Amino acid sequence: MIFSDPASVAVVGASDDPAKWGHWLARGALTGRDRRAVHLVNRGGGSVLSEPTVRSLSELAEAPELVVLAVPAAHVPAVVDEALSVGVRGFVGITSGIDDGVIARIRAAGARLLGPNCLGVFDAATSLHLAWGRFQPGSLGVVSQSGQVGLEIAGLAAASGIGVSRFVSVGNQADVTATEALLDLVSHDMTTVVGVYLESFGPGIVTAMSELRAAGKPVVLLTVGSSRAAQEAARSHTGALTSSLDVVDAACRRAGAVRVATPAALVDLAAVVSSGVPRGSRVGVVSDSGGQGAIAADLAVAAGLSVPRNPVDLAGAGEQDLENYVRAIDVLARGGEVDSVVLSGYFGSYGPDTPSLEALEVAVSDRICSLARETGVSVVVHSMCADSAAVRTLKAGGVPVQHTIERALNALGGAARLGRPTQTVVPQTKAVVPFQPGYLAARELLSFVRFPKAHAVTSAAEVKATNLNGPYALKADWLQHKSEHGGVKINLTDPATAFDEMTARLGPGTYVLEEMDTRENTVELIIGAKRDHSFGPVILVGAGGIHAELLKDTAIELAPVTPATAREMLARLISAPLLSGWRGAEPVDVTALAEVIAQISETLVARPDLAEIELNPVRVGPDGVLAVDALIIPSGDKVNDTSGRRVA
Amino acid sequence: MIFSDPASVAVVGASDDPAKWGHWLARGALTGRDRRAVHLVNRGGGSVLSEPTVRSLSELAEAPELVVLAVPAAHVPAVVDEALSVGVRGFVGITSGIDDGVIARIRAAGARLLGPNCLGVFDAATSLHLAWGRFQPGSLGVVSQSGQVGLEIAGLAAASGIGVSRFVSVGNQADVTATEALLDLVSHDMTTVVGVYLESFGPGIVTAMSELRAAGKPVVLLTVGSSRAAQEAARSHTGALTSSLDVVDAACRRAGAVRVATPAALVDLAAVVSSGVPRGSRVGVVSDSGGQGAIAADLAVAAGLSVPRNPVDLAGAGEQDLENYVRAIDVLARGGEVDSVVLSGYFGSYGPDTPSLEALEVAVSDRICSLARETGVSVVVHSMCADSAAVRTLKAGGVPVQHTIERALNALGGAARLGRPTQTVVPQTKAVVPFQPGYLAARELLSFVRFPKAHAVTSAAEVKATNLNGPYALKADWLQHKSEHGGVKINLTDPATAFDEMTARLGPGTYVLEEMDTRENTVELIIGAKRDHSFGPVILVGAGGIHAELLKDTAIELAPVTPATAREMLARLISAPLLSGWRGAEPVDVTALAEVIAQISETLVARPDLAEIELNPVRVGPDGVLAVDALIIPSGDKVNDTSGRRVA
Repeated sequence: MIFSDPASVAVVGASDDPAKWGHWLARGALTGRDRRAVHLVNRGGGSVLSEPTVRSLSELAEAPELVVLAVPAAHVPAVVDEALSVGVRGFVGITSGIDDGVIARIRAAGARLLGPNCLGVFDAATSLHLAWGRFQPGSLGVVSQSGQVGLEIAGLAAASGIGVSRFVSVGNQADVTATEALLDLVSHDMTTVVGVYLESFGPGIVTAMSELRAAGKPVVLLTVGSSRAAQEAARSHTGALTSSLDVVDAACRRAGAVRVATPAALVDLAAVVSSGVPRGSRVGVVSDSGGQGAIAADLAVAAGLSVPRNPVDLAGAGEQDLENYVRAIDVLARGGEVDSVVLSGYFGSYGPDTPSLEALEVAVSDRICSLARETGVSVVVHSMCADSAAVRTLKAGGVPVQHTIERALNALGGAARLGRPTQTVVPQTKAVVPFQPGYLAARELLSFVRFPKAHAVTSAAEVKATNLNGPYALKADWLQHKSEHGGVKINLTDPATAFDEMTARLGPGTYVLEEMDTRENTVELIIGAKRDHSFGPVILVGAGGIHAELLKDTAIELAPVTPATAREMLARLISAPLLSGWRGAEPVDVTALAEVIAQISETLVARPDLAEIELNPVRVGPDGVLAVDALIIPSGDKVNDTSGRRVA
Repeated sequence: MIFSDPASVAVVGASDDPAKWGHWLARGALTGRDRRAVHLVNRGGGSVLSEPTVRSLSELAEAPELVVLAVPAAHVPAVVDEALSVGVRGFVGITSGIDDGVIARIRAAGARLLGPNCLGVFDAATSLHLAWGRFQPGSLGVVSQSGQVGLEIAGLAAASGIGVSRFVSVGNQADVTATEALLDLVSHDMTTVVGVYLESFGPGIVTAMSELRAAGKPVVLLTVGSSRAAQEAARSHTGALTSSLDVVDAACRRAGAVRVATPAALVDLAAVVSSGVPRGSRVGVVSDSGGQGAIAADLAVAAGLSVPRNPVDLAGAGEQDLENYVRAIDVLARGGEVDSVVLSGYFGSYGPDTPSLEALEVAVSDRICSLARETGVSVVVHSMCADSAAVRTLKAGGVPVQHTIERALNALGGAARLGRPTQTVVPQTKAVVPFQPGYLAARELLSFVRFPKAHAVTSAAEVKATNLNGPYALKADWLQHKSEHGGVKINLTDPATAFDEMTARLGPGTYVLEEMDTRENTVELIIGAKRDHSFGPVILVGAGGIHAELLKDTAIELAPVTPATAREMLARLISAPLLSGWRGAEPVDVTALAEVIAQISETLVARPDLAEIELNPVRVGPDGVLAVDALIIPSGDKVNDTSGRRVA
């Protein structure tokens, strides 16, 4: 592949000035000289890094397969045109500000462009180093929308011992996308775990992450946006309750990936899972200090892990015999009670403090590494010593070592999340019947949902003629935001009078007279489905009323979901205890509720003509689910509560 | 002071074996030889570290003032007795397992003991190094209940550049307590900030932390316990809702201190505030990468900081001219919009990557330090480079540098919390009148609280004779847990029948007939005061009903509180929006509510005969506060709902 193992490369803009990018790129490119031809191009001529240069690509006897563009933007068009004319197949666009015309010519010629405005590409498997920066070969594949964040990840990966298998800075993604760069890693043997930094999410990203996961390569996603105040203007409660990061998290759950907030968190987590994902979230704590053990246990719980037994405090036993460290870890790792072990404290410092103990400490470190490999239990060490022979032995043996306990336990917490089973994906069906806006039409389209008995009414006489039982609700069928426009009245005992009052304000049209749900001991929820601009259909379930608005007590997944996933969503709600028999009450019908959530999610997926579906509120009791209001917004529709009326 | 600057010291158990503690302690002690006489005692004789030793303390011409006990526990009694007989005034008990008799003899002789089971004491101001481990002199005073956690703090402090002014490992606190060690630091000039690790809290700890704060020395408290499942058996809702860490946090707010969860968090925060606490929580973000700036902004918000403007992205401008880093920070620091600045990204790496830029990068670092000093704006740097000349220049100039962005921003977040004003402490009054258990007695004692109209009744005839308005509540006066024992019935329209039914079950006694509160649009809360075993009286306010149990939506402070602090507690509740005009409703009477909270808190403080006071629920509306039930538990009282009845 052209960006993985080109037969020949040329660095255009190669420079002998160590402060220039062209210098770093030339130096990197030359490291691959035993595998491919490397040409340096400098329009001033002369030598670069003691190597001869040519003044232009045309001077080369044979066209290089891949060209690195490290010249000022003004020179790029001429260089690209010359390159295309001699048959170059790929470009790494380090330069920012490559104009659209140039990009179009590259694509038209069937060539490919990485970038522009990127930091390049590195591949440890093929000695391809066409990127700014230093890389330690290893097992982490890095794809980054920000070159510098990618470099920070690579630097931390070198320090952690995991190293980088492949680094792709995708820059502006004018041609090669992050999705494509991720898919490349599926078959990249050196890559056992993937770290990706993205600020936006193009098509196929969930699929790419899922394929990596299926190939046994866990994906850790770093993204931003939690501090962004700007939410897209919401037309429904579902919209107001759905933050962009919630949707990213849903996408990660779907793909079996995990989101982190910092480069260090990404690398620390990758280091834990690079040789295998822990089977669960139970962690055993071993320390040579009661205080450090207690701190570790607190942090473990805060990181979402469970600590099934009290921390093992070796106290002076570690110091008396370093073998006791292995023994304690061995007992935990083979005891079946835990999925991971954290060792926190002094270990790693014996050698530096007491040189006569160094060899033994290294040997013990080796045995800890073997133990982790043999048992499949993830071991992470927190050492008060930042660097020592023992620390290096552990890292080289695949046991991550952290200098702060929080990094150790946050990584184990993330690893446990990666260990959760992935969601079953529902086969999608499409069956579109035109949708006419309105409450009655929504009830009809959502025929799998139980609604209160209702009749369409257009006159007080029709209201009086219905055989419905009070108390009643009266709704203006066509209004999307009924309450705001006075288009809904509830708890009515005299609906005909209410009808006259409402029509006097809102004019003639189709109204809906409906029985009220008078069941006691029900729980109110909101169920909504909408289209996310990055990830497509999403489904939300949330607590109703005060809980929804005050707490934003919601769970979100990519749609469609199975009833099983819907149950997991319900279980995540803060309000979940209300569903399962609160204070001795009878549990509500969660099975029916999960079925409704799943079907709403499938309906939005099957109906590209719909933008949003919302049941709000839904009331669920021991005897089932009743939707008390429904709203469907067609795609491309704007809220138009005054002119959208259909007169019957 | 004997543990700060003794005139002479002796290390008993000094050893030439580098694997023994007596070796480290002797080596440390000898570093202070230009200031004081240092004697090494080894019962085998010979030399230690090329210094002569004596076989016992009696061989010394003059008694040392302070003796370090680094001998096996079995030898301690003889050594101590000999030391006391020659007039030794203080002991550092490194050895664990010093028995109570020995400790008693030390105290009886008027001498003092640090420890036992401690790692010793270090004082940079007096070259006193009677502790295991290495210390870099600096400004952080460390007091630790765990020696090894203290050493971890000292090690991190050395790496961060802040260093340690004084280190006191208090061990088992058989004589010298953590409180005493903290108070010592008030007048310790080298100490500008204090870090303390405690697992338990003795008397006077809040006062000691307050005095340090008043002396301009911020206190950072590290403690554990968030993962402990064991809560003390609770007799009231207040008890069930009060976790021990909540109370520690309340103690920190009272003392103007801040709690952290890890040694690194302690040191990072100390490094930020060692030269001054930021004035507020507004942070400006400067980066040379848009991605890193966005990550920093997200973390800032997660750390409780506000980011009043978008991150400054220097992009290539930093690389073009390193002075632009100073310029960007200068604009923010002098603009008045922020209280702190974080610089995140590549800065610090120029020198290592491009040696010709090292001198300029160091000069720019110097100017950043000056800028921070001049403006009083806290500056923290996150550098992709772990160590460089620029990084060392920044640290030496008082600007903390972190290798991960989370450490930088968590520290700034903690520093902003330290900047909050301390609470006003209420003068305490005592006025005890004997309390007889029961609901009516509680109403009487809490005469400042409004309760519904009520009458004591002992017969159906008395019930019928009252002039109260229905609906009614009927309560068995003497029961602490009325609902569990069927001792409360509400919404009664026929209270006489209910009385007959209740007395048939519970027998004769004093019952209370009470009017129900039928106001609409009220908010239900719980107000409780209880005694914490470490910190004494605490006051709790929480959301009522489902919110209390499902969300544990509570705020806790040490009692007593002023009405102003009570208002702050209310503002911290998740349910706070319900009080201030939820969905267009009239705001409730927060002034009256705060007054009740303050008075309940004062009452428990003034009444040592009471263990707990609880109003649950309290209903507050725009027209004031009404307590619908009250429970007072006398000190030493056990819940005794069957035999505690008072027959009228």
